[in-house]
Amino acid sequence: MIKGEISKLESYSVSNIIQKGGTILRSARSKDFTTKEGRKIAYDQLQSLGIEGLVAIGGDGTFTGANIFFEEYGIPTIGAPGTIDNDLYGTDYTIGYDTAVNTALDAIDKIRDTADSHDRVFFIEVMGRDSGYIAIPCAIGGGAEIVMIPETDTSIDYVVDTLRTGWSRSKTSFIVIIAEGGEEGSATEVAAKVQTALPHMDARVTILGHVQRGGSPTAADRMLASQLGIACVEGLLTGRKNEMAGIINGELVYTPFIDTITKDKPINPEFINMVNILSS
Amino acid sequence: MIKGEISKLESYSVSNIIQKGGTILRSARSKDFTTKEGRKIAYDQLQSLGIEGLVAIGGDGTFTGANIFFEEYGIPTIGAPGTIDNDLYGTDYTIGYDTAVNTALDAIDKIRDTADSHDRVFFIEVMGRDSGYIAIPCAIGGGAEIVMIPETDTSIDYVVDTLRTGWSRSKTSFIVIIAEGGEEGSATEVAAKVQTALPHMDARVTILGHVQRGGSPTAADRMLASQLGIACVEGLLTGRKNEMAGIINGELVYTPFIDTITKDKPINPEFINMVNILSS
Amino acid sequence: MIKGEISKLESYSVSNIIQKGGTILRSARSKDFTTKEGRKIAYDQLQSLGIEGLVAIGGDGTFTGANIFFEEYGIPTIGAPGTIDNDLYGTDYTIGYDTAVNTALDAIDKIRDTADSHDRVFFIEVMGRDSGYIAIPCAIGGGAEIVMIPETDTSIDYVVDTLRTGWSRSKTSFIVIIAEGGEEGSATEVAAKVQTALPHMDARVTILGHVQRGGSPTAADRMLASQLGIACVEGLLTGRKNEMAGIINGELVYTPFIDTITKDKPINPEFINMVNILSS
Amino acid sequence: MIKGEISKLESYSVSNIIQKGGTILRSARSKDFTTKEGRKIAYDQLQSLGIEGLVAIGGDGTFTGANIFFEEYGIPTIGAPGTIDNDLYGTDYTIGYDTAVNTALDAIDKIRDTADSHDRVFFIEVMGRDSGYIAIPCAIGGGAEIVMIPETDTSIDYVVDTLRTGWSRSKTSFIVIIAEGGEEGSATEVAAKVQTALPHMDARVTILGHVQRGGSPTAADRMLASQLGIACVEGLLTGRKNEMAGIINGELVYTPFIDTITKDKPINPEFINMVNILSS
Repeated sequence: MIKGEISKLESYSVSNIIQKGGTILRSARSKDFTTKEGRKIAYDQLQSLGIEGLVAIGGDGTFTGANIFFEEYGIPTIGAPGTIDNDLYGTDYTIGYDTAVNTALDAIDKIRDTADSHDRVFFIEVMGRDSGYIAIPCAIGGGAEIVMIPETDTSIDYVVDTLRTGWSRSKTSFIVIIAEGGEEGSATEVAAKVQTALPHMDARVTILGHVQRGGSPTAADRMLASQLGIACVEGLLTGRKNEMAGIINGELVYTPFIDTITKDKPINPEFINMVNILSS
Repeated sequence: MIKGEISKLESYSVSNIIQKGGTILRSARSKDFTTKEGRKIAYDQLQSLGIEGLVAIGGDGTFTGANIFFEEYGIPTIGAPGTIDNDLYGTDYTIGYDTAVNTALDAIDKIRDTADSHDRVFFIEVMGRDSGYIAIPCAIGGGAEIVMIPETDTSIDYVVDTLRTGWSRSKTSFIVIIAEGGEEGSATEVAAKVQTALPHMDARVTILGHVQRGGSPTAADRMLASQLGIACVEGLLTGRKNEMAGIINGELVYTPFIDTITKDKPINPEFINMVNILSS
Repeated sequence: MIKGEISKLESYSVSNIIQKGGTILRSARSKDFTTKEGRKIAYDQLQSLGIEGLVAIGGDGTFTGANIFFEEYGIPTIGAPGTIDNDLYGTDYTIGYDTAVNTALDAIDKIRDTADSHDRVFFIEVMGRDSGYIAIPCAIGGGAEIVMIPETDTSIDYVVDTLRTGWSRSKTSFIVIIAEGGEEGSATEVAAKVQTALPHMDARVTILGHVQRGGSPTAADRMLASQLGIACVEGLLTGRKNEMAGIINGELVYTPFIDTITKDKPINPEFINMVNILSS
Repeated sequence: MIKGEISKLESYSVSNIIQKGGTILRSARSKDFTTKEGRKIAYDQLQSLGIEGLVAIGGDGTFTGANIFFEEYGIPTIGAPGTIDNDLYGTDYTIGYDTAVNTALDAIDKIRDTADSHDRVFFIEVMGRDSGYIAIPCAIGGGAEIVMIPETDTSIDYVVDTLRTGWSRSKTSFIVIIAEGGEEGSATEVAAKVQTALPHMDARVTILGHVQRGGSPTAADRMLASQLGIACVEGLLTGRKNEMAGIINGELVYTPFIDTITKDKPINPEFINMVNILSS
């Protein structure tokens, strides 16, 4: 919007893209849009092209910007929840989340294949700076023994005790899933701390990083993106503004941006409990 | 149960299986269980081993059998919906459905890569004898132009007309998704009929078949199976019987077997509509 | 060349394409190029653009055309072997073959997951109109019991006998790999013929079709394409013409088009023997 | 051998395992076997069971042990090259290498999907403690701009310069592949050093770790393992001993263990050159 790199998209413009990771829009965070000057330029661009509504794809940051832009210039915007983190109020699932979880799980499955040596512990860092939304299904679906997420403040002592107990029952290998935003630091740091307490442990670290942000989208993500894409356009056409389209319990729901930014969507505590039931 | 091939499963018995396709139980349809004599033998086996409850994994047929078995012998059974078809009343999703759809979609993506020649039409047969539950997300997520499902009775004439119209707009290739149970027959038969009407068409047929029944389960299927596995055991422990555990709108729900057998779960008509919106 | 749809490709034109299936060139078979008039137009296009050499990607047909074009107009051409079939003299492997085999094998693995019922036989049709190059590694790598390839004329009687013998040893399921060009017809036809002889058999058919032609290329295919791409350009720059670049025993080799068209590359008979050793 | 955990494997013992990662043998490094006492116990076990020959699957370490064991007790051993690193004299490819490269490449492809922000640099650590065998095809096949392998001692200065030059040409993102055994340390350490020189760089680190050791084997690895498995048995039956079976230029070759341990198999320098040609 600020640089005026705006094109009209016809239906053929999006043919053959649904199976691809990444974005054909090549959009990314913009520092300029956080300034009053930047937003003025963006508004002028829209005016000169006669654009009367926006669809904003993203999370907290994107909708905060869209909200400010609306207050300043009154351009109606509908948002689509496009973030792999899933911790966004106003929708059960965000676009990209199912793909990210499946990608991480696929990596964990491969690590599990090699879990053949006694005393070996795999520390696997997955994304999720503020929540365990990605880590929890990875732990349940990947058969992990321990999961460290921001919600529960799992301590190094707990990890050390669990490993000791497991070894005493002659379990041969362990998988510890670590959400990147945990109190105890990155997988490398956690592994080093545990190693100090358990010197004979054979620790192996995997940091998946941006691998989780790419890849061909899953069926569920394609369905969700298709549904919400239609909902964004229909929302604008029927006069909606400053709301995010989402699916809650299978129903299309529009939620004010301000709620998506300020309200929390806590992870289902039952899922945290399931890790304990299934790993014991 | 009939042959007495019954083992006690400890928690280590199921370690390292969550990522695998197929079943470690090696269970399959049993003709003997459809007879009064077969069920008598099964009951005697359970009696002699002191087994007081059953978990039945399957669909319509499995629950019909479980229902009869309960009426005859009073053994409480809780069911888990394990079928890739998803057309089962009492749960939003069945275990295996998400995996089957992603597998089919992956095949369609590969076919799309080769969609480079004019006049070429791909006829792809997916599973779904009685419903379009698998075909619909394949069509939306795979960017298909036409989908033929039992629910809509798409005619050969409609396929022929759509292809003619597309060619007149210089579309270069077409994907037609066909649920196996359609009125117009298998993908091979549909392709032959359309070929008669459009002799210059270059038709290619793919029949995925049992490929859709295997493969490592997706994250969503592992979560669902884990949740419902716990629910089956807890259901029996709290005195439930003759019900299937399912998830509806994110909540655990138990539905009487008789309802899962007799009631329909129609596909969301909005999804059928989405195919038309997105392919036009 | 005939329509004049020619663009200059810079290094950034090919950035971010190596992981993709299909072709960004959108090239396909051309009927016009098989006529003297079509080739005249192509030559005039090259002349007017000052193009002095060609790289032809394909198999038999492509190189036959390139050969005729050279005889008529003297434009030097170097070929790259781009065909999934691998039956091309002058190179150990063709570009796309490794990807096609891995794709087919992945499908066979998924079918194997479901091989749980007695009397069930899977008939899986893979590509390979004139040779068993794709079928053989699928049979060895997929653990198939029977493989039907053009080179060996496996009879229906042999299939029937092998299934009978297997059942008598209580093997529970069978996989039969069928190259599409076999004497006994397609997988559907073979299954029907075997069904007549073995009425109690539960036959399931999978036809992979164009699924094998797409998908992200494997590491080996990317390496081969990178090596041969460089070799084509270097070949033209050093004055070579009418030859195909290939890798034989790890070494770059240029083979005259006429040899690639007229000579055979028989499949290693040891591999055919391996199927029998490993499936017995 | 030392613990006497020895079973007879029939052909059905290995049915349905060819598609699996890891090992059903659950074999791993043994400290005891490095001692004279340990080897004595192993020998006694073999004697008591009448075992007259061994097949050793592994790399340098495995064959060193097998060699010593033969010198002490005269038990003939044939080796199969089972290591993902590929740096083993006596075979073009080791079993597991092709799978490891394809797994790493798949991760790099996903990272490439997100390469949308200016100044972003991905540092991806792959396996290869002593060689760039895994890193090189990852760099060529993954379209990386820089590869750091033990063979070439790429300096931090070179990395910094290449990034600066790229930015000046407005390249938007970079992928740096780092073999784990490089002079400049792990991916985390390299990223930190480059960050010091280029403070505005947005560095992202991925450490694949043991992900590369698991997963369903590729077609090429299954063919190689099948060929060499047969060769090990046939080698023992025809009186061979203390040799590793390998494939060189498509031919089966047996190489004395002492050569596989002491001789080097340098990486093809042409491949290192290809990275530079293709990334420029």
